Amino acid sequence: MEISSLGEFGLIRRLTSDIVPKNAETVKGVGDDCAVVAPAAGRRLLVTTDMLMEGVHFDLEYTPLQHLGYKSAMVNLSDIYAMNGRPRQMTVSLAVSKRFSVEDLELFYSGLRMACEKHECDIVGGDTTSSLTGLAISITCIGDAEADDVVYRSGAQVNDLICCSGDLGAAYMGLQLLEREKTVYHKLLANARARGESPDSLPPFEPDFSGREYLLERQLRPEARRDIVEALHAAGIRPTAMMDISDGLSSELLHICSQSGVGCRVYEDRIPLDYQTAVMAEELNFNVMTCALNGGEDYELLFTVPLTEHDRVSAIPGVKVIGHCTRSELGTLFVGRDGAEMTLKAQGWNPLANS
Amino acid sequence: MEISSLGEFGLIRRLTSDIVPKNAETVKGVGDDCAVVAPAAGRRLLVTTDMLMEGVHFDLEYTPLQHLGYKSAMVNLSDIYAMNGRPRQMTVSLAVSKRFSVEDLELFYSGLRMACEKHECDIVGGDTTSSLTGLAISITCIGDAEADDVVYRSGAQVNDLICCSGDLGAAYMGLQLLEREKTVYHKLLANARARGESPDSLPPFEPDFSGREYLLERQLRPEARRDIVEALHAAGIRPTAMMDISDGLSSELLHICSQSGVGCRVYEDRIPLDYQTAVMAEELNFNVMTCALNGGEDYELLFTVPLTEHDRVSAIPGVKVIGHCTRSELGTLFVGRDGAEMTLKAQGWNPLANS
Repeated sequence: MEISSLGEFGLIRRLTSDIVPKNAETVKGVGDDCAVVAPAAGRRLLVTTDMLMEGVHFDLEYTPLQHLGYKSAMVNLSDIYAMNGRPRQMTVSLAVSKRFSVEDLELFYSGLRMACEKHECDIVGGDTTSSLTGLAISITCIGDAEADDVVYRSGAQVNDLICCSGDLGAAYMGLQLLEREKTVYHKLLANARARGESPDSLPPFEPDFSGREYLLERQLRPEARRDIVEALHAAGIRPTAMMDISDGLSSELLHICSQSGVGCRVYEDRIPLDYQTAVMAEELNFNVMTCALNGGEDYELLFTVPLTEHDRVSAIPGVKVIGHCTRSELGTLFVGRDGAEMTLKAQGWNPLANS
Repeated sequence: MEISSLGEFGLIRRLTSDIVPKNAETVKGVGDDCAVVAPAAGRRLLVTTDMLMEGVHFDLEYTPLQHLGYKSAMVNLSDIYAMNGRPRQMTVSLAVSKRFSVEDLELFYSGLRMACEKHECDIVGGDTTSSLTGLAISITCIGDAEADDVVYRSGAQVNDLICCSGDLGAAYMGLQLLEREKTVYHKLLANARARGESPDSLPPFEPDFSGREYLLERQLRPEARRDIVEALHAAGIRPTAMMDISDGLSSELLHICSQSGVGCRVYEDRIPLDYQTAVMAEELNFNVMTCALNGGEDYELLFTVPLTEHDRVSAIPGVKVIGHCTRSELGTLFVGRDGAEMTLKAQGWNPLANS
């Protein structure tokens, strides 16, 4: 169905009419000039926003729209958890070109809603408009936290332990894998054309993903770490600093160090890696540690805790102590397995490199 | 200066480092995973978002970037006032293609900041990334209001007066004027090329805007009606329903009527028009009343008040009573100067018409 046949308000109704707000604080969702929220007394509000552009942040050739909706939500939910908060409301703006149908947007929304339902976040508004080329997605998420619970990037202290959830580099390897299979497919198409055959005459392309499912999942369907925030809370641990790993561990660690005025030492043999990440890096001739440090899109949590929390934080499943904070004049160091020290560099993904 | 030479964080620093939050509720602005807000006790939070795409919502051939920044902010501020609230915080996301320089974004931000300073709204965050083609702008604005002061679209009652601020249709006439001069300019260029001359050899193009300054201002530099919200408050009037006129009076009035379950009668001879709007419509052979009803981008306030407020609301400068609400079965009627009745139609701008 063509989007223009529904019009803006018809489309919004179709995508959002059966959304029922779950949070008591959500007074009014979609349907007026503004959404209305009644913040719980004494709590701090957290606001984050992200913009995702087709061709820059995602490739629809290998990204199903449902997964894209899910991931678009997760990217924002992750920022709320990174402040030690809980997501509550979300606004979703889409600009779409002619090649998208109503059904495409329904797929996108189904993924988005799945993510929001899982994280108990209400979709309260947005904007749906047209674009001359491609798909643009802009999401704003509002969360909340008790005033004393909010964790900034700037609170790390000398001697604090540096901790990381999950494992790193897998999303980046997943991206490389998808790009490789895309190239294979395009070569098959080009060869068919060179032989004068129609691309339609080719057997269906079956990309080789066997044994790499984890990498694909990490790239296409990341999960914001609500479980880690809850586990820290249950253990009575308040991180001194925290952020989520979207641009790569190195880049994020440097943000925490510079904003906290500390240095750091992180250890190569402590960096969490998945087996599939290591195998894929080997196969593609990538340095797996470079992938883990600079790959990005992990959406894991990077945080610091006082040294006294060592035993309690180590006991949380999926959390690893990867180093500690030092006086800033000692620098921001990565210590190799052989003991060699290297200064960390922010070589994470630069969204403006192409602009 | 090329944007890529600064990188994402360098660019954000350059655009936002000297922004100092003005609202006491803004705890933390740009620089962490989220902005942090401490809502004033008992107040409701208002959230609105808008997305503006180059080639769909604006044409940079005749829209200075500073004006575009100003207008992008106003579009969102206007939605907060339309709920009878006060704007407090704003996030700003931009996706830019290669052809934009750091100086371009500084111009955009200077207009944006001018608007925010005037309306005492803090820029607390955003996202800056790249786009394959053109400029995409996504802004989210957060405002607040006492719980009892929030005005929805759904509160209009039978016999309520329908009121409108300012005048209508001028922004649309401004757009037509800019488009006309653009066409003239393109013809001059085409003729020069046909004569084998370089476009650079032409004398500087001087568009004919004399006596049309008001139309240009309404299109390029609209102003959200904080003054009207304050005047209503000072007069002790709480509108029963309100929204801002962005898609055209007809479309907005139909929203209020359907959401409030009422009908309406509005009178042609009460619709506020500026002299320049009428002259320009005449010149372009447009029906001026169609422009006023369906033109859009006026960013005036449309609201309803109890009949008992007639004298007090009429005494507010810049507010005009244009009709009244009726029982819904009487329909949504526009009454011409000759007494002829016509059913209102939403022929406002459809942002999805091209998609």
